[in-house]
Amino acid sequence: MRFSRLTLLAATLLMFSAPLRAQNTPAAHPLDSLKTQEYWTIYDVLRDSGKLPEGVIFSSVLLHEPPKDKVLAWKPGDPVFREAEVILTRKGVTIEALVDIAGRRLESWKERSDVKPPITEGEYFELNEVIKKDPGVIEALKKRGYTDLTPILCFSDPVGYFALPEMEGRRIMLAECIDTHGVYSTWSRAIDGLQIEVDGTEKKVLKIIDQGVVPVTQAPVNYQDFPLAAYPNTTPISVAQPLGASFTVKGSEISWQNWRFRFRLDPRLGAIVNLVSIRDGDRYRSVLYEGSLSELYVPYMDPALNWATRVFVDAGEYYHGGILKPLRADVDCPSNAVYFSGLAPDDHGLPVLHSQLACLYESYSGDPAWRHYEDHEVGGSGARVLVLRTAAVIGNYDYVLDWRFERDGNIRVAVGATGLIETKSVKAKKADGGGHSMAGAPDEFGHFVAENTVGVNHDHFFSFRLDVDVDGTSNSFVAHRLVKRQLKNPERKSIWVAEPFLAKTEKDAFMDLSLSKPAMWHFINPNVIGPLGYPVGYELMPGATAAPLLDPDDGPQKVGAFSNHQLWVTPYKVDERFAAGIYPTASKGDDGLAIWTKANRSIENTDIVAWYTLGFHHVPRPEDWPVMPVMWHDFVLRPFDFFVQSPVITLPAAP
Amino acid sequence: MRFSRLTLLAATLLMFSAPLRAQNTPAAHPLDSLKTQEYWTIYDVLRDSGKLPEGVIFSSVLLHEPPKDKVLAWKPGDPVFREAEVILTRKGVTIEALVDIAGRRLESWKERSDVKPPITEGEYFELNEVIKKDPGVIEALKKRGYTDLTPILCFSDPVGYFALPEMEGRRIMLAECIDTHGVYSTWSRAIDGLQIEVDGTEKKVLKIIDQGVVPVTQAPVNYQDFPLAAYPNTTPISVAQPLGASFTVKGSEISWQNWRFRFRLDPRLGAIVNLVSIRDGDRYRSVLYEGSLSELYVPYMDPALNWATRVFVDAGEYYHGGILKPLRADVDCPSNAVYFSGLAPDDHGLPVLHSQLACLYESYSGDPAWRHYEDHEVGGSGARVLVLRTAAVIGNYDYVLDWRFERDGNIRVAVGATGLIETKSVKAKKADGGGHSMAGAPDEFGHFVAENTVGVNHDHFFSFRLDVDVDGTSNSFVAHRLVKRQLKNPERKSIWVAEPFLAKTEKDAFMDLSLSKPAMWHFINPNVIGPLGYPVGYELMPGATAAPLLDPDDGPQKVGAFSNHQLWVTPYKVDERFAAGIYPTASKGDDGLAIWTKANRSIENTDIVAWYTLGFHHVPRPEDWPVMPVMWHDFVLRPFDFFVQSPVITLPAAP
Repeated sequence: MRFSRLTLLAATLLMFSAPLRAQNTPAAHPLDSLKTQEYWTIYDVLRDSGKLPEGVIFSSVLLHEPPKDKVLAWKPGDPVFREAEVILTRKGVTIEALVDIAGRRLESWKERSDVKPPITEGEYFELNEVIKKDPGVIEALKKRGYTDLTPILCFSDPVGYFALPEMEGRRIMLAECIDTHGVYSTWSRAIDGLQIEVDGTEKKVLKIIDQGVVPVTQAPVNYQDFPLAAYPNTTPISVAQPLGASFTVKGSEISWQNWRFRFRLDPRLGAIVNLVSIRDGDRYRSVLYEGSLSELYVPYMDPALNWATRVFVDAGEYYHGGILKPLRADVDCPSNAVYFSGLAPDDHGLPVLHSQLACLYESYSGDPAWRHYEDHEVGGSGARVLVLRTAAVIGNYDYVLDWRFERDGNIRVAVGATGLIETKSVKAKKADGGGHSMAGAPDEFGHFVAENTVGVNHDHFFSFRLDVDVDGTSNSFVAHRLVKRQLKNPERKSIWVAEPFLAKTEKDAFMDLSLSKPAMWHFINPNVIGPLGYPVGYELMPGATAAPLLDPDDGPQKVGAFSNHQLWVTPYKVDERFAAGIYPTASKGDDGLAIWTKANRSIENTDIVAWYTLGFHHVPRPEDWPVMPVMWHDFVLRPFDFFVQSPVITLPAAP
Repeated sequence: MRFSRLTLLAATLLMFSAPLRAQNTPAAHPLDSLKTQEYWTIYDVLRDSGKLPEGVIFSSVLLHEPPKDKVLAWKPGDPVFREAEVILTRKGVTIEALVDIAGRRLESWKERSDVKPPITEGEYFELNEVIKKDPGVIEALKKRGYTDLTPILCFSDPVGYFALPEMEGRRIMLAECIDTHGVYSTWSRAIDGLQIEVDGTEKKVLKIIDQGVVPVTQAPVNYQDFPLAAYPNTTPISVAQPLGASFTVKGSEISWQNWRFRFRLDPRLGAIVNLVSIRDGDRYRSVLYEGSLSELYVPYMDPALNWATRVFVDAGEYYHGGILKPLRADVDCPSNAVYFSGLAPDDHGLPVLHSQLACLYESYSGDPAWRHYEDHEVGGSGARVLVLRTAAVIGNYDYVLDWRFERDGNIRVAVGATGLIETKSVKAKKADGGGHSMAGAPDEFGHFVAENTVGVNHDHFFSFRLDVDVDGTSNSFVAHRLVKRQLKNPERKSIWVAEPFLAKTEKDAFMDLSLSKPAMWHFINPNVIGPLGYPVGYELMPGATAAPLLDPDDGPQKVGAFSNHQLWVTPYKVDERFAAGIYPTASKGDDGLAIWTKANRSIENTDIVAWYTLGFHHVPRPEDWPVMPVMWHDFVLRPFDFFVQSPVITLPAAP
């Protein structure tokens, strides 16, 4: 979850990166990404306000979305209303500034000491220097044979909020040092047994926790060095589009087949799709006003101090510099893809250009969209899908994040987890043969993935924010519960029926998946009745997922409380965007979904937002070493009573 | 679930189809499909036995698999041991014959009256004629305005076993008639309100159940007639392999990248993969001895007589003529696919050639196999997958069935459900606006999919038989249960740990999915310990699935009892192949998984077989009309402690 070695070394360079020549056009739509000139306007407004303290860090600069009604009323040619929400940090004080970009004025300025800003690269860099100069650390490293500290890097991570009195009002972080000698990929090279508690605000070492020497694993981790060889007789394969792509890109608006939507790349949330609509006859009908990742929560499952405190809330803690990282052509996306660059602010709020942060392509894997065999004839059509792909990289983990638009009206949201696992060095070379997870065993809380190397058990939870607008903004949520009904028939004792349950308030809509209590989750527009007498709707269909096993009142779980249900539904509020709150770093869990929904607000026939939690447990395996094959999870939004017939029925056979 | 109109009309033609010139080579391996000459040998042996009664029907001719030890001991050049198991039917008597093909002799002959053979096309054909000549039926049809019976077809389906005394010892079927006037696709055109009980053995109408006139829906069902039009600017897309495929086909053996396996096309079970092994360094290691679909169970959820009795056990009831139907190039499989034909026996046991019953191709959709971003560099590799695809078509439903081999050692088994839904005509044009499923509403037990047309709720359950042989035949099943552990740490109150549970007997291995009680399902070889101290293993990872909601002692559920758990593990028995028993037709549920496992046999460190149930509930929607977009479900077998590192780490970047 830390930044990588070279990123750290290069951090000073990035701070002075040259002015940007791309992304330089003015915003053409209220929901466009912040543009280069807008970042500079924000900078100028804040500088000219005379309020900027010396040494201030720009922890975050994000587009402040206009309220939905303003966006929906906006027409091309109208002035583009633009605001930025800025988080500034100076010595333990967090400053929230709201800047009216078009008006070039500071709208509000609020200083807070009750919240912690996200981590910045500069903070890592500074703390690395501080730690390596600490006599106690030098001594502890010397005890382990490290006298040349050039190859040593010490990374400080936030520790979650654990209700410890000494943390109150301070920025407590826990550092460990890495022996980077001889390796590119430094994952797995932590010097286990040595933890350093630091004060991230005061930039000083508070405590050295030396739990004894554990030799650093020497397991081969340099995946770059592995000899590559295709299997014999491997022939080339690709997705071919000799006449080019079928989609059109007009600014931030994408049109493809029956779909139309906008998207922007946000430093914190990654790809945000907006104003998603689908053509039905000669009109476009709205499906989603907005969809995006909202938060990520990755708690580890080892009681040791340096693992119990790894309860990353990744999007909200680690987005400085932008959560998205570049894609590689022909690895991440096929050769028919087009790429999009994006901007993210540096420590001074100045825009840095990042290339290939998203790709867009048409995918065809050889599957049918539908088919039927009858009377010796096969009818059907090949399936073609439009994929908008990004990759969020948070240290070791890479999450490939897809919005897949299918011609049958489905939107498939997929997460592919890959990258490296987090491991600890252990004295034992391998498991003792007594089976996994025995008390006191080196792999009690994980699994050997290489010699002396244990991958630590953990979970991944993703919250997706889905602002559904099915044929308009006023929607309701209906759970169709499939319940057994006893029969008195001689033929049959039982069937099931689908009983609709209209959720009137937020608590009605807490949905927990269970095979014994299945339900369909429908978002309907009660004001638009289709020709068959049903309100138009879209269904959210979960895929394989997981629920947390932690105590709900455990500190980390209070912050990652969005994972407590697989579905939540809230009324639309423009500023309710982050499922674990704006400031998850060392949060007490006093913001986010679980807090908002305590008010149990009405969600009936109003503008509502769905929040889907996708999760999985991860016990690492040797096959995840040194890199993990992608593991995909997904969920689907699909039309249900939205169209009057299958949208694929009129497609020709060719994909 | 019935055969289609033209199939019925063409049935007599098929019975006299010309001798076959393909599939004519002798069997080269004990697990090869039955060959043309073998079908003729079986026919000759039975004819020459003098035992064949006049008018006998060949209900089933299948390869009788040799015991595993004989197959594993077999080497090329050895004589190929071949047997066929034949089910013959004559006037209510079911005859089981076992034929030694190589020895050209009848090994056994057993006449039974306690079981019901599967449906045959000839049976449909005969009963159609009988029903349409019945004066009562003629009268009932006349009442509805049908005097020209040429366009009328009457289909008889088995009704499951409902413990009704009058069914004992008889072949009771329930027929309904279809008005095929003016349509190709006759689904949805049943004359509702008129049911005809027939005796399938005596070929006579027993009872006419006239529940009143319901006009046949006129909803457009001729999907062939829908005007096809690509969206504007649609450009061609395909999977391109200019130098051809990377796999090799040698008889029934496929080699591709690190995989090697055999397959055959079985009339009852479809594609059966065998002897699946994966290369590790310079040796092939076994993963699966055999994998296939074992059974299909589709109960409908409407108390009306003609729906309560629709509890199809599709593979075992409807496989006459072969459960697989042809694939269409560029619709079902991409242009780089190769196709395989197959044989299925007709009513006389004679082989009929069917083209394009399976396709094999390399798939590349643009996804990465793994990737990692670090230090401004992206490492990774494109994902290429080998797909073995078939389509089982049982009347209205098409199931696309995939075995997907991935280079990371995963085997993904996927089911894509498509085709048409079963509907009933109702007097109401549309829902009354009072919401779904109200008592007495026309859509109480389903959902309007078109005017006057209600798709009836139902389930789909698939049993997959997975004879795992992880590095040899002696395996064990271990469930790693993820359980919460309370901590006394100040930092953390709780974590989870993975607790292994070794299943000693079959009942230990009844696995039910629950988000609150997660477990990993591992098939290990306790006799082969890997270099990290763990027994080698493969994990079965479920995808989204469903469990039945019916009473376990409801008649249909006793037959479809394999759906009661998501996983079962049994000791290997060569003749335990069909999860709902050999004869599910009108079965009392006295054969199959739920019966075998009552013995609670040992499954520890022995040859074991896994049975995975994949299921989903289906409430139809207008978007499923007149054809359903493919809905995919899958599960994965993946290496866990099988390899010492990720098998994809040495792949080059190009897919």
